[in-house]
Amino acid sequence: QMREPLLFLSLIVPALTWFYGRSRPDAWTQGGVWPLPQHIEYGKVNRTISPQRMFINAGSLEDCDIVQDNVRGYVERWFFPFPVTADPSASPYHLSIRIGSACPVGAPQQGMNESYSLKVSSEKAVLEASEVWGAIRGLETFSQLIFYDEKENTYKLRTVVIEDWPRFSVRGLLIDTSRHFLSVKTIKKQLDIMAANKMNVLHWHIVDSESFPYESIRFPHLSKKGAYSPRHVYTRAMIEDIIEYARMRAIRVMPEFDTPGHTSSWNSQSGLLTECFDSNGEDTNLPNLIDPTNEDNFKFLGEFFDEVVSTFPEKFLHLGGDEISDYLEECWSRNKKIRKFMKQRGFTNTTQLEDYYFTRLENVTSGLHEKRDRVFWQEVFDSNKPTESSIIHIWKGNTFAELAENIRQATMKGHRVIVSSCWYLNYVKYGTDWKSYVSGTVETNSRYYYCDPHDFIGTREQKKLVMGGVAAMWGEMIDNTNIEAVLWPRASAVAERLWSRREDTNDAEIAWPRLHELRCRMVSRGYRFAPTNWPDYCPFEFTD
Amino acid sequence: QMREPLLFLSLIVPALTWFYGRSRPDAWTQGGVWPLPQHIEYGKVNRTISPQRMFINAGSLEDCDIVQDNVRGYVERWFFPFPVTADPSASPYHLSIRIGSACPVGAPQQGMNESYSLKVSSEKAVLEASEVWGAIRGLETFSQLIFYDEKENTYKLRTVVIEDWPRFSVRGLLIDTSRHFLSVKTIKKQLDIMAANKMNVLHWHIVDSESFPYESIRFPHLSKKGAYSPRHVYTRAMIEDIIEYARMRAIRVMPEFDTPGHTSSWNSQSGLLTECFDSNGEDTNLPNLIDPTNEDNFKFLGEFFDEVVSTFPEKFLHLGGDEISDYLEECWSRNKKIRKFMKQRGFTNTTQLEDYYFTRLENVTSGLHEKRDRVFWQEVFDSNKPTESSIIHIWKGNTFAELAENIRQATMKGHRVIVSSCWYLNYVKYGTDWKSYVSGTVETNSRYYYCDPHDFIGTREQKKLVMGGVAAMWGEMIDNTNIEAVLWPRASAVAERLWSRREDTNDAEIAWPRLHELRCRMVSRGYRFAPTNWPDYCPFEFTD
Repeated sequence: QMREPLLFLSLIVPALTWFYGRSRPDAWTQGGVWPLPQHIEYGKVNRTISPQRMFINAGSLEDCDIVQDNVRGYVERWFFPFPVTADPSASPYHLSIRIGSACPVGAPQQGMNESYSLKVSSEKAVLEASEVWGAIRGLETFSQLIFYDEKENTYKLRTVVIEDWPRFSVRGLLIDTSRHFLSVKTIKKQLDIMAANKMNVLHWHIVDSESFPYESIRFPHLSKKGAYSPRHVYTRAMIEDIIEYARMRAIRVMPEFDTPGHTSSWNSQSGLLTECFDSNGEDTNLPNLIDPTNEDNFKFLGEFFDEVVSTFPEKFLHLGGDEISDYLEECWSRNKKIRKFMKQRGFTNTTQLEDYYFTRLENVTSGLHEKRDRVFWQEVFDSNKPTESSIIHIWKGNTFAELAENIRQATMKGHRVIVSSCWYLNYVKYGTDWKSYVSGTVETNSRYYYCDPHDFIGTREQKKLVMGGVAAMWGEMIDNTNIEAVLWPRASAVAERLWSRREDTNDAEIAWPRLHELRCRMVSRGYRFAPTNWPDYCPFEFTD
Repeated sequence: QMREPLLFLSLIVPALTWFYGRSRPDAWTQGGVWPLPQHIEYGKVNRTISPQRMFINAGSLEDCDIVQDNVRGYVERWFFPFPVTADPSASPYHLSIRIGSACPVGAPQQGMNESYSLKVSSEKAVLEASEVWGAIRGLETFSQLIFYDEKENTYKLRTVVIEDWPRFSVRGLLIDTSRHFLSVKTIKKQLDIMAANKMNVLHWHIVDSESFPYESIRFPHLSKKGAYSPRHVYTRAMIEDIIEYARMRAIRVMPEFDTPGHTSSWNSQSGLLTECFDSNGEDTNLPNLIDPTNEDNFKFLGEFFDEVVSTFPEKFLHLGGDEISDYLEECWSRNKKIRKFMKQRGFTNTTQLEDYYFTRLENVTSGLHEKRDRVFWQEVFDSNKPTESSIIHIWKGNTFAELAENIRQATMKGHRVIVSSCWYLNYVKYGTDWKSYVSGTVETNSRYYYCDPHDFIGTREQKKLVMGGVAAMWGEMIDNTNIEAVLWPRASAVAERLWSRREDTNDAEIAWPRLHELRCRMVSRGYRFAPTNWPDYCPFEFTD
């Protein structure tokens, strides 16, 4: 395979500073690719390309559902999103897709091959990939080489030679459907956008204290009593619809069922949660921790997760485990039944009871009818003793130094790691937080573009254990009305950090015109990519 | 006319604190009215009401375009927004609208009468108003008395006696179409929402340094050269469309053309702006102040504003005047021509040159073919000598004490005042900023609901000079993609502060269930009212 030396984008509009040192409002690339490919060399010519005269040949995989779905989507919608009458007289153009393996029957999983090569000349284009997943990534790249030529009022295609693959294997987005319900339509739109950003994991934080929108077939009372209303429920059919939609975009759907804390909404499961007491010994009526002393609960969890595993094909299962300490005092320490159990077992502190719970939970989830890799939030590593095969999801660290230390510690113990600490996108603020420090916030709460999961001192082996990161969009202040414009393009900064070569993406001021083009392209495709770098404009503004 | 003692909302869901002391996710009123009417007394019964069996009689004004437009809008869209099959067997219901004056031919103006009374019994409803403008406000109130009954899956109507009028005459929203262009569609949607919040002034900050989207017939080069692109221009027809759309909703459209600063985008007017120089004496090529030494410029401004006055019927004309000091040094002090002029006139400081500019601008705008009341940003009062009839738009004050002092000073000198300092909604932040202080921000940058323009020590006469306020949505980080969800319901807090009795609206925790119902109603009407009070839900979530 060919490895061309990197030639940087040749069509960059000079990003002159402007009023108040801001970027120019018209500083966008033409045919720039986001996230930046590993190797990209632009040709000297652009050619006119016409929507009516663009043909795709997918060779032996022409009948593959994923290929068909993507080819249709790109041809009908994504290649030519700008509302212009493009030149119908352009000569025909052919894109050949060559995929080196069969059409996948199952969902994408850890280890899926997303690499591809793309050669675009003025005569034709060839996209090669070992797997369909890589071809999907390559199709998006191809779509980004097409741009609108204002002067000629036509579409142009940049010629290019690209060799591309992801730097990290996990490039995720967390959505939280407990604090506010998100419609299937909203979730699908975010999947569309994730694919355009080459992100590959939807981390679905599906339930939490506030509501339980997951419909369990086996335990239907959970959503009947725990969902906000019968209209705030994900049925099995809706979930399968989302998983299939994600699969078509080479995106995994990793469910999270967070225990033993954040469980108030599970309360209809009799005996599952402990009673909690305030400092006066009064029942708070807000149970929020599972009762590990009740043997039935582990039986329940086993059956519950067995169903989860049937529903979600994803081989990673996120088991939560965060913020138990917030409720330890009121739900465990002040509870007589718990104290009695601890005494019987000889536990002298609640951490030992946590250890007990997680050991039992690991046993339960080891016995499911399909094997899963467990993911835990950081505290389970910090306080307890997860098995080495467990993946640790790092979310703490107010400074970059603290974050680095957290990653170092977990990888030192041999755990694979996913990083979210510096990508809590739900914390909105005024300014260009994707690249600049915003005063009044903690250090790791802005400059998303510059946070690198490999920024810690560790061995080559440790670095390999870092699987990637997840941009977290917690739902306290987010619902269908605002998720899209709050997420994007801020999450695109994370997407590029996790896909592209670090050496080529270490300056947001150089990246900005390419991000601006991405914003305008996505706006033309009908997605709410909000302004993120002070005054600017797009050739065609958002319209709904 | 009847003045019933205030009986507070009887159907409030108890706003129990919940997790983390937050409001309950289901704490909403049924048939609550936002902003709260001056006098409201609910009846004891609700009645079922059916979309198919609801009739409106507008009496003598049945042919009035504004009445027709509103009746149609409310009957077809706003009364029954929830996607349910409502009971068609309900008995018919009649709303009679009685308006005490003729159908207005012109636009609403300062002094328009927005008062109305509304009696809703289980048999019929009567809405009375002196002017059409009040009837529009009353129709919205009536629409808010209709709610969805989850149990019976029908619409219910609350019976009520209301006597209502606004506390302040100016209740505005500033939009900024220079930093980012906003489509006519986006602006119209905000006008819809303003009307639902009984807001009555669209303060259109139409041009600024960054771009000049206003198409002048007389000086077409201004937008040809100054707009971002030919697609980023408001033609005369588009502007008239917006003004008419606003008129139908009893909303005034007050244009702002800010001079002498913030004028970089006017640069195609030859000789208008001074050259500016950096500290090395190099031309910055970023002119941003008008040249007051060029006599032609006042002739130009006279002709320009004469056209503005023809375009905008609104009797208030906002002339800007803010932040000149930012460019004084580089654009005036370092400019030889300016220095020479100052010497000739005996000006020893640039403030005298500012005085000269504003005196000339006042003369120019006094001579327009239609009379206008001038509005200036606060600095013109702070530094210069505006005529007493000028309205001062207060936007400074990082603390509530500073803000109060600013209002006190301007009213003491006899100026009418509009307040914006505590309502800069463009400054987004994480949290419930409509009611709570958000740490890391200046004092006047959250708790919108609690900022009161009368919170200063002054005479009764001074208080009367306070006309109201304007919620400011500056456009640096705002465009079609995100304006709606960033604005609402945060701006609704401002709307209630400016409409309702202070005594009845001094506790956001009491107001919250009513605001929650407003959010859900507006979400059902298809507007992006975002979560603003931690986890919650609506009976029907937003769908687009």
